[in-house]
Amino acid sequence: MIVFVDMDEVMADTYTAHIERYNKKFGASLTKEECMGFEVWQKVPETRKDSIWEHYYEEGFFRSLAPIADSIEVLQELTKKHQVYVASAAMQFPNSLLEKHQWLDKHFPFIHWRNRILCGDKKILRGDILIDDRSHNLEHFKGRPLLFTSPHNIHTNHFERMNNWREIGDAFL
Amino acid sequence: MIVFVDMDEVMADTYTAHIERYNKKFGASLTKEECMGFEVWQKVPETRKDSIWEHYYEEGFFRSLAPIADSIEVLQELTKKHQVYVASAAMQFPNSLLEKHQWLDKHFPFIHWRNRILCGDKKILRGDILIDDRSHNLEHFKGRPLLFTSPHNIHTNHFERMNNWREIGDAFL
Repeated sequence: MIVFVDMDEVMADTYTAHIERYNKKFGASLTKEECMGFEVWQKVPETRKDSIWEHYYEEGFFRSLAPIADSIEVLQELTKKHQVYVASAAMQFPNSLLEKHQWLDKHFPFIHWRNRILCGDKKILRGDILIDDRSHNLEHFKGRPLLFTSPHNIHTNHFERMNNWREIGDAFL
Repeated sequence: MIVFVDMDEVMADTYTAHIERYNKKFGASLTKEECMGFEVWQKVPETRKDSIWEHYYEEGFFRSLAPIADSIEVLQELTKKHQVYVASAAMQFPNSLLEKHQWLDKHFPFIHWRNRILCGDKKILRGDILIDDRSHNLEHFKGRPLLFTSPHNIHTNHFERMNNWREIGDAFL
């Protein structure tokens, strides 16, 4: 099977880092629990909404992200059984292109460069499974779309859901 | 229609730049005409074969490439009629990721970041047409593969061929 795996909020904990950077910048104390069911920008004061994206363009942000729990272990096994491709919508943040590649080299060296895709729109992907936290990426996929649980999507209910990497391991290993 | 267009040797004249860099490095005078039907590395002395790829990893190489004749004009029209995606196997050269993005911003600003794909293996692309100079990229494509003429592929004869961008314009505009 050809399995596509999204990076941000599936392999890399972008959401937590986003909150941490926001708190540091504004001396705030927003928690992940408060954000459940929302995007981070929806939980910050109106005057800060425009500037909370700035760290997405800063050098080092994407390189510093922590891997999501169990993603390394499960993906390492998954790559032995399936054709696993990382598919990240990275084009919006050009500085992230090299950083994402380096981040994969560091945490997921077993995913070969041939199996890495940095794109804009994911509707051009041809394969069997797409694991992603964003509905708009899953909607046009012709295979089996799987919604990976992230704080912002806990109320989304029109996709088959994977709550964590252990569930993915149970389903496909 | 969804149309994928390769970058190197289809939009960007990598082949000529490759020869120029080789000549400069070794004080050689290899010409494109001598290389017809071959890869550049096949036309250089054995002792130089290993080092002629070095400039692919050097800062600025991909940013400096000249656009292929008529590619800008034809692609500008093509994007008005079709869903055009740039699909470049850039992962092998990590330094090229940002440079390729910037090169597109400079020469093809009308191709939105959503329509840019930097990948390793192109067999994961789902669409109608793939224009590429490499047989190995075209072989697994499920749509209509089109071989774009480049010095190295003039003897390849198992794909429908486009000799230049004017032919592509005639066929799809």
